[in-house]
Amino acid sequence: MRSVITLLTDFGTADYFVAAVKGVILTINPHVSIVDLTHEIPPQDIESGAFTLLTCYRDFPPDTIHMAVVDPGVGSLRRPVVVRAGHHYFVGPDNGLFSYVYDSETSHKTFHIANDEYFRADPSPTFHGRDIFGPVAAALSKGVKPRKLGPRIFDEVRLAPLSPVKNDKGKLRGRIIHIDRFGNCITNFTRAHLPNGAQPELRVKRKVIREFRQFFAEGDDGLFAIWGSAGFLELAINGSSAASTLGAHRGDTVVLQPPTVN
Amino acid sequence: MRSVITLLTDFGTADYFVAAVKGVILTINPHVSIVDLTHEIPPQDIESGAFTLLTCYRDFPPDTIHMAVVDPGVGSLRRPVVVRAGHHYFVGPDNGLFSYVYDSETSHKTFHIANDEYFRADPSPTFHGRDIFGPVAAALSKGVKPRKLGPRIFDEVRLAPLSPVKNDKGKLRGRIIHIDRFGNCITNFTRAHLPNGAQPELRVKRKVIREFRQFFAEGDDGLFAIWGSAGFLELAINGSSAASTLGAHRGDTVVLQPPTVN
Amino acid sequence: MRSVITLLTDFGTADYFVAAVKGVILTINPHVSIVDLTHEIPPQDIESGAFTLLTCYRDFPPDTIHMAVVDPGVGSLRRPVVVRAGHHYFVGPDNGLFSYVYDSETSHKTFHIANDEYFRADPSPTFHGRDIFGPVAAALSKGVKPRKLGPRIFDEVRLAPLSPVKNDKGKLRGRIIHIDRFGNCITNFTRAHLPNGAQPELRVKRKVIREFRQFFAEGDDGLFAIWGSAGFLELAINGSSAASTLGAHRGDTVVLQPPTVN
Repeated sequence: MRSVITLLTDFGTADYFVAAVKGVILTINPHVSIVDLTHEIPPQDIESGAFTLLTCYRDFPPDTIHMAVVDPGVGSLRRPVVVRAGHHYFVGPDNGLFSYVYDSETSHKTFHIANDEYFRADPSPTFHGRDIFGPVAAALSKGVKPRKLGPRIFDEVRLAPLSPVKNDKGKLRGRIIHIDRFGNCITNFTRAHLPNGAQPELRVKRKVIREFRQFFAEGDDGLFAIWGSAGFLELAINGSSAASTLGAHRGDTVVLQPPTVN
Repeated sequence: MRSVITLLTDFGTADYFVAAVKGVILTINPHVSIVDLTHEIPPQDIESGAFTLLTCYRDFPPDTIHMAVVDPGVGSLRRPVVVRAGHHYFVGPDNGLFSYVYDSETSHKTFHIANDEYFRADPSPTFHGRDIFGPVAAALSKGVKPRKLGPRIFDEVRLAPLSPVKNDKGKLRGRIIHIDRFGNCITNFTRAHLPNGAQPELRVKRKVIREFRQFFAEGDDGLFAIWGSAGFLELAINGSSAASTLGAHRGDTVVLQPPTVN
Repeated sequence: MRSVITLLTDFGTADYFVAAVKGVILTINPHVSIVDLTHEIPPQDIESGAFTLLTCYRDFPPDTIHMAVVDPGVGSLRRPVVVRAGHHYFVGPDNGLFSYVYDSETSHKTFHIANDEYFRADPSPTFHGRDIFGPVAAALSKGVKPRKLGPRIFDEVRLAPLSPVKNDKGKLRGRIIHIDRFGNCITNFTRAHLPNGAQPELRVKRKVIREFRQFFAEGDDGLFAIWGSAGFLELAINGSSAASTLGAHRGDTVVLQPPTVN
C-alpha cells in the first residue's frame, strides 16, 4: 500500500508555504502520495479546521497520515503532537484541532513530538509545518512509530464538543458550524437528535423552517432542511445560497423544536 | 501505464468535498494518479463545466478517466453515466456536461450507471461525487468495463452546440463563451468560420475590432482578436483585461462581419 | 528516485491552463510526480514569481524540475530557457523569473531551448506552458540533458537584485517584497544586514518599529519585526494583518536605522 499524507492548513495557496511542506516531505519520502484536504481554512480558525478534518478523514485509506496545521501558537510552548485514532495518524499542534476526531473515535493515543532528530535542521519558530510537522509526517510514512517521536500525553487540548445543548425551555439549541461554497448552512444537529418520523421545526434568524427534503432539486423555492453528506442537518435553498438569504453566519443559533432527545 | 483520474467540479477547494472524493478513490485504487482540472466552475454552471472539460481533456493520456461533477440535479432522477469517447472515459451526471465532448468526437458510447455494487455504501442523495462518481471512476481505473456498470443509452442530454448562428442579415452571430483569468474573452468562432486571408471585423458591446494578432505582446494598446490556445477566437488587450474594458460578460453577443461561411 | 516537476504560474486555477500542462506532462512521463508551487502569482508579475520560487525551491529533492511560467512576452522573441543551478532544473521564459535563483547559487548554466523536437506539435503562440515548457520539463524528467535542448547562453535577463541599498544619510533603505496571506510584510533585509545583538529600528509608512520577536504569540498587541521562515525580516502583528494596519503594499520603503553593514 502506497502511503498517503493529507494536508489541511490555513496557509492559502498563493504563498510558498504549502509548496515548502510538500518539498520537504518528498525529499524524505519520494514515494508518498500527498493530497490537499484544503488550505483555505480561515486564518488561525482552529474550530473550522477541526470541523473540516472531521468531515473527510474517514474517507481515506487506513494508515493515512493527516497533517493539520492551523497554528496561532506556532513557536510558543503549545505542544506538537502525533495522534493515532481510528486507524489513521494525525500530526499537528495540540490546540484543539484534533478535538472532534477524539470525540468521534472510541479511543486514541496522543504523543508529544519531542525527538528533534526527525525535524528539519534549525527549525524556524514561525513555520513548524515545514520544519516539524512535515518531516514528522514523512517519517511516519516511512514506518517510524509514534512512540519514537516522544512521550504519550493524556491532557490534550480540547474544544467544546460540537453537540447542541438543551436550553431552559427544553428546546435543543444548536448552531451553524459551517457554511459551504453553495451557501448551505451546516448545523450541529445529527440523526441522534431527530427520531425517525418526527416533524420538527427549526428556528433560525427569526425564520421557521418546516420543510424537510431528501435532495436539493425536490422542489423549487424556499428554505428547507436536508441531511447533508457529512451527517449533519443543513439549511438550504435549491440553486441559491441559504446563508445569503438568511443573513446567516457561522455560530448563529438554530433552535430545534420540539426537543427530541432527553 | 499508471491510471490517471482527473476531477472537474464546482465544489471549490475550501470545503471537504474534493478531499472526500480523493480519499474514496485512493481507498479503492491507491496507485492512481489524481489530477485536478479545476474545482472553480461557477456553482451549478453546467455550460461552463462542459467548456472547460472540452478545452483540456485531449491533453491527457489515452484511457484517462475524467470525473466531472456539476450537478444541480444530484439525488433526482437525472442519470449517472459513464462515457467512452476519443480514447478517454468520462464519469458524471447526464445533464449536458459531456455535450461538447460528444460534439467533438466522431463517436461515443454512453452507459447509465445502475450497478450499485460499485457505489460507496449507503450513498448520500446530496453527494454523488463521493458516493457514486468517485467510486465508479476508481473502478474504471482498476479495469472494470463500462458495460459492467449499466446499460448503454442513446438519449443523452445535450446542450445547444457551441457554434455561432447566422442572423437574418447574413452575419455570423457568436457569443463570449468564457472569460479567463487574464480577462481574455473567448468566443465560439473557430478557424472554420474564418478563411485564411480574410479581413473580418468583430462587433461586440458597440465596439468594432479590426486588429488581429499572432501573440499578445505584438503591440501595445487597444483591443485585438487573437487565436487562443483552445482553438477559439479571443478578444484581448495586452497586459490588461479585455472583459473589464468592454464591460463584457459570458453570453454577450459577438458579430463577425462579413460572414465567411454559408 | 521518482522525478518531481513543480509548477509555478500566474494561470490561476479556474481555467484549463494548469490542467492542460499537467495532461501534456503525464502523457510524456506518467511516472512523474507533479507538485503545484502556486498558480496565484498576480497576472504577469515576474518579480513576484521570482520571489516565490526563491523561497521554496531548495526544499525539493535534488534534480527536481521547476517549471515557472509568468510570461507576458509569450510568443515574442523572448527566449525559452532551461537552467541548471544548485542541483535543480528550471524551465521557463528568460525574462528575469530565475534571477533570484542565479543570485543565490554560486553558479548556474542557462540553455536557450531551441530544439523543437521536444515541443508539442504546432505550438500555440499564446500558451508555451502547455506547448514548450511542459513538454521540455517532461523530457528532462526522462533524462534528456539540457544541452540537447539548445545552446548555452550567458546574457540571461536579470531583475534588480533583492538587496537593500544605502541611502545618502547612511541608512539602509529596503522595501516590502511580499505580503503573505496573513498580512505579514516580508522585507528584503536578511541576517547579513543585522549583526547579532544590534538594537535597530525600522521605519515604514511613518511608523517606527522597535520590537523584535522570536515567534508570533510572544506578546499581544502592536507591530513587531520577526525573522521569517524564508530568511527575511518580516513586519507582523499577532493574530492580525500588519499590511492592513500599516496600509502597506509591496514595494513600500522600509528604512533600517542604524545601518549595520558598510
